[in-house]
Amino acid sequence: MSRHYFHSYFQKSLWLYQLSKAGKLCVPAMNVNDSVTKQKFDNLYCCRESILDGLKRTTDVMFGGKQVVVCGYGEVGKGCCAALKALGAIVYVTEIDPICALQACMDGFRVVKLNEVIRQVDVIITCTGNKNVVTRDQLDRMKNGSIVCNMGHSNTEIDVASLRTTELTWERVRSQVDHIIWPDGKRVILLAEGRLLNLSCSTVPTFVLSITATTQALALIELYNAPEGRYKQDVYLLPKKMDEYVASLHLTTFDAHLTELTDDQAKYLGLNKNGPFKPNYYR
Amino acid sequence: MSRHYFHSYFQKSLWLYQLSKAGKLCVPAMNVNDSVTKQKFDNLYCCRESILDGLKRTTDVMFGGKQVVVCGYGEVGKGCCAALKALGAIVYVTEIDPICALQACMDGFRVVKLNEVIRQVDVIITCTGNKNVVTRDQLDRMKNGSIVCNMGHSNTEIDVASLRTTELTWERVRSQVDHIIWPDGKRVILLAEGRLLNLSCSTVPTFVLSITATTQALALIELYNAPEGRYKQDVYLLPKKMDEYVASLHLTTFDAHLTELTDDQAKYLGLNKNGPFKPNYYR
Amino acid sequence: MSRHYFHSYFQKSLWLYQLSKAGKLCVPAMNVNDSVTKQKFDNLYCCRESILDGLKRTTDVMFGGKQVVVCGYGEVGKGCCAALKALGAIVYVTEIDPICALQACMDGFRVVKLNEVIRQVDVIITCTGNKNVVTRDQLDRMKNGSIVCNMGHSNTEIDVASLRTTELTWERVRSQVDHIIWPDGKRVILLAEGRLLNLSCSTVPTFVLSITATTQALALIELYNAPEGRYKQDVYLLPKKMDEYVASLHLTTFDAHLTELTDDQAKYLGLNKNGPFKPNYYR
Amino acid sequence: MSRHYFHSYFQKSLWLYQLSKAGKLCVPAMNVNDSVTKQKFDNLYCCRESILDGLKRTTDVMFGGKQVVVCGYGEVGKGCCAALKALGAIVYVTEIDPICALQACMDGFRVVKLNEVIRQVDVIITCTGNKNVVTRDQLDRMKNGSIVCNMGHSNTEIDVASLRTTELTWERVRSQVDHIIWPDGKRVILLAEGRLLNLSCSTVPTFVLSITATTQALALIELYNAPEGRYKQDVYLLPKKMDEYVASLHLTTFDAHLTELTDDQAKYLGLNKNGPFKPNYYR
Repeated sequence: MSRHYFHSYFQKSLWLYQLSKAGKLCVPAMNVNDSVTKQKFDNLYCCRESILDGLKRTTDVMFGGKQVVVCGYGEVGKGCCAALKALGAIVYVTEIDPICALQACMDGFRVVKLNEVIRQVDVIITCTGNKNVVTRDQLDRMKNGSIVCNMGHSNTEIDVASLRTTELTWERVRSQVDHIIWPDGKRVILLAEGRLLNLSCSTVPTFVLSITATTQALALIELYNAPEGRYKQDVYLLPKKMDEYVASLHLTTFDAHLTELTDDQAKYLGLNKNGPFKPNYYR
Repeated sequence: MSRHYFHSYFQKSLWLYQLSKAGKLCVPAMNVNDSVTKQKFDNLYCCRESILDGLKRTTDVMFGGKQVVVCGYGEVGKGCCAALKALGAIVYVTEIDPICALQACMDGFRVVKLNEVIRQVDVIITCTGNKNVVTRDQLDRMKNGSIVCNMGHSNTEIDVASLRTTELTWERVRSQVDHIIWPDGKRVILLAEGRLLNLSCSTVPTFVLSITATTQALALIELYNAPEGRYKQDVYLLPKKMDEYVASLHLTTFDAHLTELTDDQAKYLGLNKNGPFKPNYYR
Repeated sequence: MSRHYFHSYFQKSLWLYQLSKAGKLCVPAMNVNDSVTKQKFDNLYCCRESILDGLKRTTDVMFGGKQVVVCGYGEVGKGCCAALKALGAIVYVTEIDPICALQACMDGFRVVKLNEVIRQVDVIITCTGNKNVVTRDQLDRMKNGSIVCNMGHSNTEIDVASLRTTELTWERVRSQVDHIIWPDGKRVILLAEGRLLNLSCSTVPTFVLSITATTQALALIELYNAPEGRYKQDVYLLPKKMDEYVASLHLTTFDAHLTELTDDQAKYLGLNKNGPFKPNYYR
Repeated sequence: MSRHYFHSYFQKSLWLYQLSKAGKLCVPAMNVNDSVTKQKFDNLYCCRESILDGLKRTTDVMFGGKQVVVCGYGEVGKGCCAALKALGAIVYVTEIDPICALQACMDGFRVVKLNEVIRQVDVIITCTGNKNVVTRDQLDRMKNGSIVCNMGHSNTEIDVASLRTTELTWERVRSQVDHIIWPDGKRVILLAEGRLLNLSCSTVPTFVLSITATTQALALIELYNAPEGRYKQDVYLLPKKMDEYVASLHLTTFDAHLTELTDDQAKYLGLNKNGPFKPNYYR
């Protein structure tokens, strides 16, 4: 699979909103990236596994006891943190958003600025969608043997360009793994040249692909079948009911049994027995 | 604290939407209940602790090895499940919503209908907001010594009325704890007569109260200060920026240090350096 | 239950070995305290729950985001750390024993000296069996509002005596909870006057009592029935087979189903089909 | 690394005891396999990571929501169960030993006979040291697409020989991965032909190798330097103090800081300030 897979989803949803804002969107569009099911599976649940897989396949690192800093505590960061904590790593979080930062606190992670821990951590993982989250100055201060990698949405989170200078030596030790060697002999292990670890060095489970593909197909069907006027030249979120439908199609995999509302209960809750079960803003 | 505390928040947000729908809302209103910070703290993080506390204070039950079914996998259910799983209970989930059901699967819980496990579980916990989630017929089939309690939003989730019949004996064994005794001697332990366990038998941390109170105060200030026309006679969610402000005020408690965007980064992300950092629909 | 309950088990096992060493033990004795089943239940599994319960009942503290240091990473410390980590606390460990310290690392806890974190932690919990683990000098440096308590084996782990001086004010705020007030107004919350939190402020589940009582009864029966000469005037560990028997009697509570060895498998492993299944030194 | 690596450690310790029992051991021997540090690292901590790694590299399976049965709840089984549970799998345990079974209960796993769950599980993992733990009859009843693998000590835990019959087709889909195809088209995925997954399809971290090698070297030094008569022609466990020394040498990796006993504390505990800190039977 192309390593541009996720990039394009996230990026395209941004582009759609920019086009819309600029009045240049000439058809109705569906932002499938932000449907609940797509978000949780592509990001939280998938990355919870691929961060471990990507690190193991490239470096064989032992997680137990390692100090790790995860930059960004969105869905991807939450998945990375949960997995690493569960396997005995000591995890720090950096955040710009106070809501996500407070969630990190409640989940048991110290929220720090990168500079506070840069000299002590064994691994840096970026999951921000931002650029230059790890700068050359910070890479200079990392420990010998430490690992730096990116789980975010582009290859700009780590300032890899700043490492392509004459005083540093690059040594490719295996596919997707470079040792960057400082003049004093210090080595920092850079994975996938700063591109997405989960796509470059791990795999996307077929289950996750199925959810994403189903979501896309349903969005297209909805746009095609919608009566004149339901959608204008704007960006829409997938209707809740379709999001729920995607989920329901995947429950059988787990032999999961849904409870059905009685007529009386549906009336009490003011809901249709077949859904949607939540308001649109519910996540 | 009054046991009506949470009830009213959730209920009032429902009433507001009903009034609005009926065209009877005569002032602008803010649905503070569904701000991110309020939701996560009052529900997820608070209940994660109060389910353990409420059960211990009333029954001294040991969690390790117990089989528990949690009805409803919203924020409250998620908190209950996470806490009980962490302490060695085996947890089953019931759900009507396929999205929440799929999340329960991915978090490691079997999704079942209540009747599939009713004879084997040691504890039933309701967190649905629905009524008659546990019926008399199901209570009849519970094991001797099993516990039934409610963490949802009213006292109708367990059909307690159906237990007030002549063939069953009620024995109050301590405050908030009744043994319901069947003719054959079987006892089911009912907590708080089916009212909210977290409010009747546990406490709400001052930290959570602070978040809720701050959210309310800011909502009122916003409504009061808003320029003419910003808010109509409708129900609004708290502006993202205020939600973030509430969170930022509480970060110092944890000695958490936020990272600030550089000018360059803010421009790249298309964000104001002071927030809001996420779209309104982000949860 | 008397708060001396555990104390006496641990203490008596020490006394037995001292008597034996001094040649003053005049009958055979069984060290039931160190049977596997007793150790794990009274210590690891029981304390994993009672640390949460004891803290909640006395202080209503919210665990999420709190910084906690646990002194001692034996069975009791392991239980405390696991529970607090699971509920979102950030936990540090102090240890004297490098084996236990290395286990703490692998389980995701930073191993520090108490002085490194004393100024930043919200809670100190002692589980060492040692004395003066928390000294007056350290109590002087704790934060305002921090909590100090003891889960170890006596009331000497925290140097409580050093707090009974004229410049400090004691204020009893509820049963088992004292605020110690420094001249500058700083308050430290001392639980159970430094005695065992799990016995003073929580409860011991009947399940754990059953295991302990069964272990004791079987030890007595073994000593009484043993043929002349099997036991000399020394201290013995409970025979593995009896330890296994205690466990097997308690499995039905959990509807747990043991697998039985085939004749062929028993022969392959060199085991009797009815146990014991492990060498005596196995823990 | 040879896939016989662990096998030989465990096996050799068994052989030593058999030789000793038969009076054929002609030199003193040290059972390094059962030193605490060796046991925990080679088994618990190492397998906690390699089970995930081995499954991912061979099958790319998603762990979330999968139903898994782990046969055997010793150190290896405990590691496998903890890791899979943490990543959202639903885990069942089979055991012959009631003590380990009771621990599995308290850690939140249902203890079942293999036949109770054979039709519903997605993955079977053997960690018993026994033979024929998974029989042909049971393999016949597994679901289409299910995975079977071995983390135990030899290649006999799964009855692989019984699968080499004419009615079944073997299809090698990648290195270490065979699809066994039943006449009706059902496929079971067999990893490493039933040999050790952790050695065949994952890696052993250098940190774990260092601990094992250090333990061995110290055992040899001890035997060589021991005064005449300290060791007879028997099997000995590594002296506690050496076990502690191995651990202390590895603490610096984690920047862990040990606490030192004061003279007063050492006297109170009856310990030498430099250890050993625990009795020999302590695990």
